[in-house]
Amino acid sequence: MADEVILLNFCPSVFGMRIRIALAEKGIEYEYREEDLKNKSPLLLKMNPVHKKIPVLIHNGKPVCESLIAVEYIDEVWKEKAPILPSDPYQRAQARFWADYVDKKVYAAARNVWATKGEEQEAAKKEFIEILKVLEGELGDKPYFGGETFGLTDISLIGYYCWFYAYETFGNFSIESECPKLIAWAKRCMEKESVSKSLADPHTVYDFVLGVKKRLGLE
Amino acid sequence: MADEVILLNFCPSVFGMRIRIALAEKGIEYEYREEDLKNKSPLLLKMNPVHKKIPVLIHNGKPVCESLIAVEYIDEVWKEKAPILPSDPYQRAQARFWADYVDKKVYAAARNVWATKGEEQEAAKKEFIEILKVLEGELGDKPYFGGETFGLTDISLIGYYCWFYAYETFGNFSIESECPKLIAWAKRCMEKESVSKSLADPHTVYDFVLGVKKRLGLE
Repeated sequence: MADEVILLNFCPSVFGMRIRIALAEKGIEYEYREEDLKNKSPLLLKMNPVHKKIPVLIHNGKPVCESLIAVEYIDEVWKEKAPILPSDPYQRAQARFWADYVDKKVYAAARNVWATKGEEQEAAKKEFIEILKVLEGELGDKPYFGGETFGLTDISLIGYYCWFYAYETFGNFSIESECPKLIAWAKRCMEKESVSKSLADPHTVYDFVLGVKKRLGLE
Repeated sequence: MADEVILLNFCPSVFGMRIRIALAEKGIEYEYREEDLKNKSPLLLKMNPVHKKIPVLIHNGKPVCESLIAVEYIDEVWKEKAPILPSDPYQRAQARFWADYVDKKVYAAARNVWATKGEEQEAAKKEFIEILKVLEGELGDKPYFGGETFGLTDISLIGYYCWFYAYETFGNFSIESECPKLIAWAKRCMEKESVSKSLADPHTVYDFVLGVKKRLGLE
């Protein structure tokens, strides 16, 4: 039986991008289904009854929810090609630690950059840059977070790159002037087709954020 | 060289209990160092410079931070005995999903049960029970979350059991009357020496919570 792989997603989701990148790294064909988050499909509600959120990877009818768990699942099922996690347990723990750091820190801080105003926004920008500087410090002069090879931490973070245009425009600041090595890393990742074809267009993300800001009365 | 294993911990931590259980399951000898969280040791700050939190597992001088990552690390390094994660990728993803659910939901909800008052506390108790009922639904009639074998999800959750006395006393409610199967599961886990010797005494936890409540002006 050929594998049936379906991804339930919403295009601007940084979490969905992780699964798209992992599937592309492994060369897995899949059916992409865009969800309307204001009118979620019965399939989404059935496949992720606990969180009712995208992305959901459905492999031969069985759901895998939570993006980093889905990325590890993809790495374990299709293990022959393009390993995402290193084989050494300590390096695996380090990759998981930094991917977890991205999950615990980046999303909320990034949202505050465009969803706040005035002093609150200035504090949000400062916090966001501090978080990125921690990541830049960990990256150092390596090409990727794990060293020579593109892996889990890279996948966890790179999706945010296509949101940077929105952050910078709504926040009126430059990320590159603060974190030049991180931007060089992002550009390096974007040279990989698995990444460039999985990320949303920065202007699409900008328009999406603008729409959310209007709905929230922030414009 | 014999393995040098050190655990930096603080006794009531449900996160530290996870690492203690995993090490006990594997039969690993280790040095236990209790931290004073009001005056953290230079070693803790050096080993976990990012979060500056316990628990930290130090294996041959190298730190592993974040409890679930440490549990997976232990399972990968000492893989011969008492597997914590199943070998099947889908079952592994399920175990990780439920351990992640525990991390995302239980801690904050449980804290609100004792750190709030009045209507807010009633809402907190309701939310906490709803979360436990989701977990009880997933457990069903299985002996452990993964089926016949004690594993990752069990390890992620069981530490909270020694806090139940404090939750029930400060919240003036019964968890067992709402979630009898979950309590039966907890008692089953407590029959394992790896669990019973790793959990704090419920009265010690109660006294700790009482102290925190006093400091926060909640008593």
